[in-house]
Amino acid sequence: MRMYDIIKKKRDGHELTKEEINFFVEGYSKGEIPDYQVSALLMAIFLRKMTKQETVYLTDAMMRSGDVIDLSRIDGIKVDKHSTGGVGDKTTIALAPLVASCNAPVAKMSGRGLGHTGGTLDKLESIPGFSIEVDQEKFIENVNKIKVSVCGQTATIVPADKKLYALRDVTATVDNISLIASSIMSKKLASGADAILLDVKTGSGAFMKDIEDSFALAKEMVDIGNGMGRETIGIITDMDQPLGYAVGNALEVIEAIDTLKGKGPKDFTELCLNLGAYMLMLAKVADNYDDAKQMLQESISSGKALEKLREFIKAQGGNDQVVDNYDLFPGASHVVELKSPKKGYISKIEAEEVGVSALILGAGRETKESEIDLGAGIVLRKKVGDFVEEGETLAHMYLNDMSKLDSAKQRLLNAYTIEDKKPQERKLIYGVVTKDNIERF
Amino acid sequence: MRMYDIIKKKRDGHELTKEEINFFVEGYSKGEIPDYQVSALLMAIFLRKMTKQETVYLTDAMMRSGDVIDLSRIDGIKVDKHSTGGVGDKTTIALAPLVASCNAPVAKMSGRGLGHTGGTLDKLESIPGFSIEVDQEKFIENVNKIKVSVCGQTATIVPADKKLYALRDVTATVDNISLIASSIMSKKLASGADAILLDVKTGSGAFMKDIEDSFALAKEMVDIGNGMGRETIGIITDMDQPLGYAVGNALEVIEAIDTLKGKGPKDFTELCLNLGAYMLMLAKVADNYDDAKQMLQESISSGKALEKLREFIKAQGGNDQVVDNYDLFPGASHVVELKSPKKGYISKIEAEEVGVSALILGAGRETKESEIDLGAGIVLRKKVGDFVEEGETLAHMYLNDMSKLDSAKQRLLNAYTIEDKKPQERKLIYGVVTKDNIERF
Repeated sequence: MRMYDIIKKKRDGHELTKEEINFFVEGYSKGEIPDYQVSALLMAIFLRKMTKQETVYLTDAMMRSGDVIDLSRIDGIKVDKHSTGGVGDKTTIALAPLVASCNAPVAKMSGRGLGHTGGTLDKLESIPGFSIEVDQEKFIENVNKIKVSVCGQTATIVPADKKLYALRDVTATVDNISLIASSIMSKKLASGADAILLDVKTGSGAFMKDIEDSFALAKEMVDIGNGMGRETIGIITDMDQPLGYAVGNALEVIEAIDTLKGKGPKDFTELCLNLGAYMLMLAKVADNYDDAKQMLQESISSGKALEKLREFIKAQGGNDQVVDNYDLFPGASHVVELKSPKKGYISKIEAEEVGVSALILGAGRETKESEIDLGAGIVLRKKVGDFVEEGETLAHMYLNDMSKLDSAKQRLLNAYTIEDKKPQERKLIYGVVTKDNIERF
Repeated sequence: MRMYDIIKKKRDGHELTKEEINFFVEGYSKGEIPDYQVSALLMAIFLRKMTKQETVYLTDAMMRSGDVIDLSRIDGIKVDKHSTGGVGDKTTIALAPLVASCNAPVAKMSGRGLGHTGGTLDKLESIPGFSIEVDQEKFIENVNKIKVSVCGQTATIVPADKKLYALRDVTATVDNISLIASSIMSKKLASGADAILLDVKTGSGAFMKDIEDSFALAKEMVDIGNGMGRETIGIITDMDQPLGYAVGNALEVIEAIDTLKGKGPKDFTELCLNLGAYMLMLAKVADNYDDAKQMLQESISSGKALEKLREFIKAQGGNDQVVDNYDLFPGASHVVELKSPKKGYISKIEAEEVGVSALILGAGRETKESEIDLGAGIVLRKKVGDFVEEGETLAHMYLNDMSKLDSAKQRLLNAYTIEDKKPQERKLIYGVVTKDNIERF
């Protein structure tokens, strides 16, 4: 088999076989096939597309390029949740203990933040003492004992994706549905989950801006997951403005704790209940959506969910007193108000601009090597649809390095559009994609 | 300007600007842009195509990547001829002295052979003493004095093409009309000709198998040449079977000499007269096709053309006695007959198979480093349309290394198709493409 023939076949619009896809993924992982042949193939894939069958083969080959984690020693059906990313997405922090408190095991591997979107690991590390360096034994033990553990993804998971992603990033071959889906799903599958819930974001702050593209990506991933024997469901949710109010590591954890106390933002609480309900169904802990949602609501109102969060924090070495005393989190020496330049309805808050502003304040990483200021960030005080007077507070900016203020403030102000007319309300959940059905709300 | 944005623009089907094309060609030539980005762009160009304007910009950028030869010190209009290649194509050897004998200057840079097609330089070197290592001063002086000189292409001509071609070769991006046309034309333009005659081959033994593709390639190159201020004409000629009878270096030179003596193969003689007539017109030595053709015929019948060949050989250090005594050429210790396995009409002779057979006999190079056996090769005794009896001679194989015989013989036999019905005659010349017109014969 020759890489040249594989490139030519895809170039001419033909379907690659399992053997051909394996040959290219294995050869590239081992360094036997050069970058320049792979980038030509990637562009051919981008322009000629891949069939569903090819995408499944690609996902499978990538998954097998590294370690495949065995979670069989954990009791119950392990459900993993994946979000395609956004600004203010602190979902895992609240959802993991919430779902675990209802007796569904949560064994989650998470990533770090890069650019304008944050990462769950960084957020968790804003809890004093909390460690995401959990070895596999301890990870499995924790989930069996308290139903929840979150650790960092090891370097040995899907090494092919790391190489391929770096190449796609510099050759304009990122935005292809088969390549995106196989990249995400190979990592989920290698992480050992029995079932997978995908939170596919849509809107201006999401990777997929267009609602139909988001449904298509969800469908592709749901088909791959089910095709590889793991029950997979995709939920299409809004990311046209930041999720909740808080953007920044400690600030987001505080908002997640508030949510488990029953006083979280309306949109974020609703999202957690929705995703959580599907996770409980996938874990076979609940039979239907309504029962599942009620279990979650009761867990919040009874304090069970918050108690699970304390256990979770303690089990990973963290100080669980943060739950009661937010002053224990890394803070910010300065809090600066952003005032509204005019009166009217907020018709738009560009999530990406808010994310970049928070990044400038220190909450994110410009490059992989950047250090994060865990106390820095933004708390929005108004969201889309709210009415503001001129001079009223739009947001608070939390920072330790005042030299960053001006450019961050400018970016944050740019994020807002204020108009005379009240904007039409956007949905929070657009639909659910399952193996056999696409339901639109 | 970023290479990423250029790849993305072409990927999305947009037209690149002159500045963007210059950026990529210059950056790649200088080693500032990596192979993997260029191969992604090449695949995007392959699948999205280039406009005529982009192809002109690409040709221009490639031409300027190295030295551009100044032939202005040569009197008259310098006409260059280029063939897209084939088997048995010894045209330059006969055509250069023939055209020069009619007072049109021929200042030609040629290449070596690779794979199953031969190169003019290798063929000329089968003349004892003949040197293609002519410096620029001597080259210009020769053309001014005797109207003809042929030398090797220097490494400093279009270095971007060498890099790009090597990359296209391993990434399945060779067969794109814009990339082929810019590769050929950038070299022709950098070689300093005032006018260009393109011999675009068509048929099973040609790069372009399909007649319409051949016309399209001719049109593309004619438009580039004229767009860059050099009068350019393209002739579409047959390469469905080898040209003439001889395939192999010394054997082809002998056939070319025979042709200048007026006793060459019918097809090859006709091709030389046709191409020569257009060269004389481009050089403004003749006003119309009929006059030009008559001048060439008279030059052959009067012996002027043969005399010019002698001068040409002597001027480049060769022994001009070869013209009268073919024994002075490198020979073959063995001549083996290929007999027809059956009776019937020859309906097909696959040029590529004949070329590969000659290559095996020693007449060609497998890799750039291979040594050529200048005396080895094949002389066909029958061509398409001829009738043969079973056991009658189809061809003679000339070789010095008998270990090659079996595989070469098998390939040569494979080249022939013999059928009961006389095949339809193919044309030798299919049409002429000029700046304003496409004429089909």
